[in-house]
Amino acid sequence: MTSREKHDRMANAIRFLSMDAVEKANSGHPGLPMGAADIATVLFTKYLTFDPANPHWPDRDRFILSAGHGSMLLYSLLYLTGYEDITIDEIKNFRQLGSKTAGHPEYGHAAGIETTTGPLGQGLANSVGFALAERILNASFGDDLVDHWTYVLAGDGCLMEGISQEAIALAGHLKLGKLVVFWDNNNISIDGPVSLSDSTDQLERFEASGWHTIACDGHDPEAIAQAIEAARNDPRPSLIACKTTIGFGAPNKAGTNKVHGSPLGKEEIEATRKALGWTAAPFEVPSDILDAWRLAGLRSVKKRKEWETRLAASEADKRAEFERRMRGDLPGGFEPAMAAYKQKLAADKPKVATRKSSEMALEILNGAVPETIGGSADLTGSNNTKTSQTKPVTPTDYSGRYVYYGIREHGMAAAMNGMALHGGLIPYSGTFLVFSDYARPAMRLASLMHQRVVFVMTHDSIGLGEDGPTHQPVEQVAALRAIPNHLVFRPADAMETAECWEIALNSRTAPSTIALTRQNLPAVRKEYSEENLSARGAYELAQASDDAVVTIFATGSEVEIALAARDKLQAHGHPTRVVSVPCFELFEQQSKDYQAAIIGNSKVNIAIEAGIRQGWDRFIGRDGVFIGMHGFGASGPYEKLYEHFGITADAAAAAAEKLLHPTK
Amino acid sequence: MTSREKHDRMANAIRFLSMDAVEKANSGHPGLPMGAADIATVLFTKYLTFDPANPHWPDRDRFILSAGHGSMLLYSLLYLTGYEDITIDEIKNFRQLGSKTAGHPEYGHAAGIETTTGPLGQGLANSVGFALAERILNASFGDDLVDHWTYVLAGDGCLMEGISQEAIALAGHLKLGKLVVFWDNNNISIDGPVSLSDSTDQLERFEASGWHTIACDGHDPEAIAQAIEAARNDPRPSLIACKTTIGFGAPNKAGTNKVHGSPLGKEEIEATRKALGWTAAPFEVPSDILDAWRLAGLRSVKKRKEWETRLAASEADKRAEFERRMRGDLPGGFEPAMAAYKQKLAADKPKVATRKSSEMALEILNGAVPETIGGSADLTGSNNTKTSQTKPVTPTDYSGRYVYYGIREHGMAAAMNGMALHGGLIPYSGTFLVFSDYARPAMRLASLMHQRVVFVMTHDSIGLGEDGPTHQPVEQVAALRAIPNHLVFRPADAMETAECWEIALNSRTAPSTIALTRQNLPAVRKEYSEENLSARGAYELAQASDDAVVTIFATGSEVEIALAARDKLQAHGHPTRVVSVPCFELFEQQSKDYQAAIIGNSKVNIAIEAGIRQGWDRFIGRDGVFIGMHGFGASGPYEKLYEHFGITADAAAAAAEKLLHPTK
Repeated sequence: MTSREKHDRMANAIRFLSMDAVEKANSGHPGLPMGAADIATVLFTKYLTFDPANPHWPDRDRFILSAGHGSMLLYSLLYLTGYEDITIDEIKNFRQLGSKTAGHPEYGHAAGIETTTGPLGQGLANSVGFALAERILNASFGDDLVDHWTYVLAGDGCLMEGISQEAIALAGHLKLGKLVVFWDNNNISIDGPVSLSDSTDQLERFEASGWHTIACDGHDPEAIAQAIEAARNDPRPSLIACKTTIGFGAPNKAGTNKVHGSPLGKEEIEATRKALGWTAAPFEVPSDILDAWRLAGLRSVKKRKEWETRLAASEADKRAEFERRMRGDLPGGFEPAMAAYKQKLAADKPKVATRKSSEMALEILNGAVPETIGGSADLTGSNNTKTSQTKPVTPTDYSGRYVYYGIREHGMAAAMNGMALHGGLIPYSGTFLVFSDYARPAMRLASLMHQRVVFVMTHDSIGLGEDGPTHQPVEQVAALRAIPNHLVFRPADAMETAECWEIALNSRTAPSTIALTRQNLPAVRKEYSEENLSARGAYELAQASDDAVVTIFATGSEVEIALAARDKLQAHGHPTRVVSVPCFELFEQQSKDYQAAIIGNSKVNIAIEAGIRQGWDRFIGRDGVFIGMHGFGASGPYEKLYEHFGITADAAAAAAEKLLHPTK
Repeated sequence: MTSREKHDRMANAIRFLSMDAVEKANSGHPGLPMGAADIATVLFTKYLTFDPANPHWPDRDRFILSAGHGSMLLYSLLYLTGYEDITIDEIKNFRQLGSKTAGHPEYGHAAGIETTTGPLGQGLANSVGFALAERILNASFGDDLVDHWTYVLAGDGCLMEGISQEAIALAGHLKLGKLVVFWDNNNISIDGPVSLSDSTDQLERFEASGWHTIACDGHDPEAIAQAIEAARNDPRPSLIACKTTIGFGAPNKAGTNKVHGSPLGKEEIEATRKALGWTAAPFEVPSDILDAWRLAGLRSVKKRKEWETRLAASEADKRAEFERRMRGDLPGGFEPAMAAYKQKLAADKPKVATRKSSEMALEILNGAVPETIGGSADLTGSNNTKTSQTKPVTPTDYSGRYVYYGIREHGMAAAMNGMALHGGLIPYSGTFLVFSDYARPAMRLASLMHQRVVFVMTHDSIGLGEDGPTHQPVEQVAALRAIPNHLVFRPADAMETAECWEIALNSRTAPSTIALTRQNLPAVRKEYSEENLSARGAYELAQASDDAVVTIFATGSEVEIALAARDKLQAHGHPTRVVSVPCFELFEQQSKDYQAAIIGNSKVNIAIEAGIRQGWDRFIGRDGVFIGMHGFGASGPYEKLYEHFGITADAAAAAAEKLLHPTK
């Protein structure tokens, strides 16, 4: 039992590390760490199962600081409990270039940071993925190997963001009972009292989504502990509404928005030291308190060792499989299965939509890779993401491999991030490409966090036809290409689709978006290639009959058009080559020589893509011809739309002829 | 009183027009119009105040079909009640290129389509803006001129999307009692029963946000009418949960996802005709039923005339002001106020952050333009969007001009769209630029709908410093530029900021995003110019001392760096010009000659922008030098970040020197 006095001093250690670090950085958010210190102290000293010396232990509990601006809470905890990445010097270097203690928690900077947070609501939505991954893996590997909790600290901002509703509705529906969310209910947002903008009864709201809710005094360690016990004893996901005072302890500023996002200032820090009876100098933690914290960091060593013993005692295949999946290695059967499939494609040359090609590829890879978890935002039949292996994950049976995410693109993407971060699973899921806009903040975080998640985005152009401009992506491919470290694929046929899936599964440090058509496409790749040509980003698909005077670059459904234009031009005596460009990002990773060779030196350069021009000047130069969209689409049968918007082989050939014979 | 039999036949007219149109188009969503026909019939024949012959009458009630895939419901209603835009031929041309009856309702295609819907949740969130605009204008112009209702039909998808939570929380908080939402509670989504992915108690959820809720049988006209009465008698916004059968009347497919997004097929349509006793041929409406509908369309003529009488009787200034605002014309005082302000800027040359410049400009324009409605997603002090004129809009006083939107970027943007669509107001509001990602689907719709809304996006680069990569936009400027019909401004100083605001307010057919710095910037425009130079999109800010061998293009905070690089290069004997590029989109609207002159023919072309390169090849060509970001940012003081990422005058000058003296 920790005495109240000891608890208070342990919590105060967090408070002073946080306020002193923010003060030194002259930047940051002291209010949350000060307000939530008691919650964190109870959680980390009594409940959270973790081992700072083995921070990646797979069966650890996860702690997600969804309110990422309170990063000093997390850094303080990591330092105090003995994670070696976060030294006192790192704390002193808070928010400095090159430090591990960035302004917001950055996944990968230090062990113990389970996810990158800061954009509000994301951590909460990630946690649904973490908790779901735990249940799914538990269904495969049993309680012996997978049996842990996901705890989240969320603020008012997290709960106001719409993504929170998607997350809590999904968690409630899936009955993720091992998910416990602390709401730091401090009534303060940046602009002032929460009552400026919100009157929601959060408990009622969570209950409406099937959650167990409890309210408690967030500064009473006993009450917090009781709430956690209650949460752990309830089969539903739990919300613990902790009434807290933001900036707890600061005599003049606590409870106001003044402590939210600014340093307290010397004077107020002095006053806080007095008020809380803290005599230690900045960045010094009294040795008995540091000892107590370090002891808390050793609490789960026994559990971890027992777990290791259980793992060691597991049946050899099961153990090997568990370890493989946790390492993130693909199974040995993946490559041969894909090679065989591609050989079959080369023989069959199917004329199908690439969304169908994707389903065909998924049928193979889901058979070979048991850790893929599919899904869709209520467009299963349109996204073609469900295969014979993927029975649904349900609230009563987590052994499935398919998640009906509902019409929740944003929550879906964030949950996928959580699953990938948890480890042991490779999530993929689908929606229409245009609705990548809804999921974009989470897709960006997948890139920033270097996670292997695969976004299947079908209906990837005006080629979707009648649904019209609200559903026709024209700028989404460009906008996604803009995200750093994000592989955006637009395959041209079944072969390229298979290749893109191969790359996506092998891409361990970047997420992928695969843009796929609704409409059927012919096979443009006629032969089997041992090399994955799509991995080059761009490659010459069709050579010119002689030194090329025209080069046509195209992606996806427009490669067919490029090839037809080439036929016309060559028939008119203009040697023309076609370059397929399935992935800009990978092309940029090729050697300068390769890039130069692909771009070539044709007199006329044309790009064809049923999207906007942005980004294409890299290939065709400022003076190149772009055949694509110049504004929003329209509602109508897709063949008519292609004609209407002038995305045709005739238009491309005519544009080339005009440049080749300017006097004509 | 409409007899039940008459009601049923009137509702069936909607059902058959919808199923026949979908059948003819071989594309579309018959299930919703068939299921919601009874609700719509009661609403349009008994409650909705509208006049098809005067569809833009400002005090009409608004009907928002948030579940936009059910577009045939709306088109049927518009045809039946006598809107001249929607003829029976348009119904027959459903989803055909060039028709007014696009796959989803497109604002501007036909009167009576109040907003573009299809992306789920958007209409519901727009409606908060519609209802808020009604209250705000009511506070200015009184019940005589502004006193109407906003009715929404939303589906399960709308309620699953996170944006719905932002919308309902805001509406509940602001007590928008004249907002009535019908939830088409049909238990079916595209993938199957809603229970696949959701278990939310929607009534409880809405109640948690301060809504009045009622449940009723959505096929019982009396029950629907009673529910509407109850909704209108309650001071809170109301949710009417209407239990319906999707595809009502189709004997074999009703109540299943088979009627959601596919034509019923000939056989099932025949069976439905039999089941509902409908003998009319496709696209024929029995004359007594059409007459009854046309009469319903005349219901509000008297009200409209009374309103016109009241308007005519209003005090002349009030009437003129009301009419001006409804036309969307700016007041006469706007231009001179801005001119005087710009003259003062030319004299003062303030060194301030552009977010501060924006506040200064807003102080002037809010003084001159009473219809601006400001706000922020809980970053008021950071976005600098509040001025002396803008007291808050509160649940008890709608006479203010500032909305505390809460941490709800997406709902905010959609509500702004709703206000702009309502007319009479010009909404602007702020968040951090990186969080434009959260608002993107609504920002896209602002562009598609040609609405004058202004998105103030501060903290527009790594220049925000310590908050780190989660908060540092690197790809957002490019991604926003990708949206068609969206003016993305990145002004370089106070003068350009004023100019951009002028353009944004004058932009009646396109929304604007103004990207603004956190850090201070010097005045780069030293003199007053009568012409708004930013309206050119790009202009020569600093001439070269002789024929330019180097041209540097830059935006925003990097214009200062470009000018410093120019100084260095000219000191080394390299005549260098600097082009400021506040808006790509406007540059593309200039004459070819102007564009060519601005791009020039310097040997070396450099672009400097603290974002990604995408889009810049338009200015500098493939071989140009780009000084900017090549990946995500980092946490640290901003000056160090600029150094770290090599975005400096030295780097720019060195790159130019290297190209000018390749042997060095």
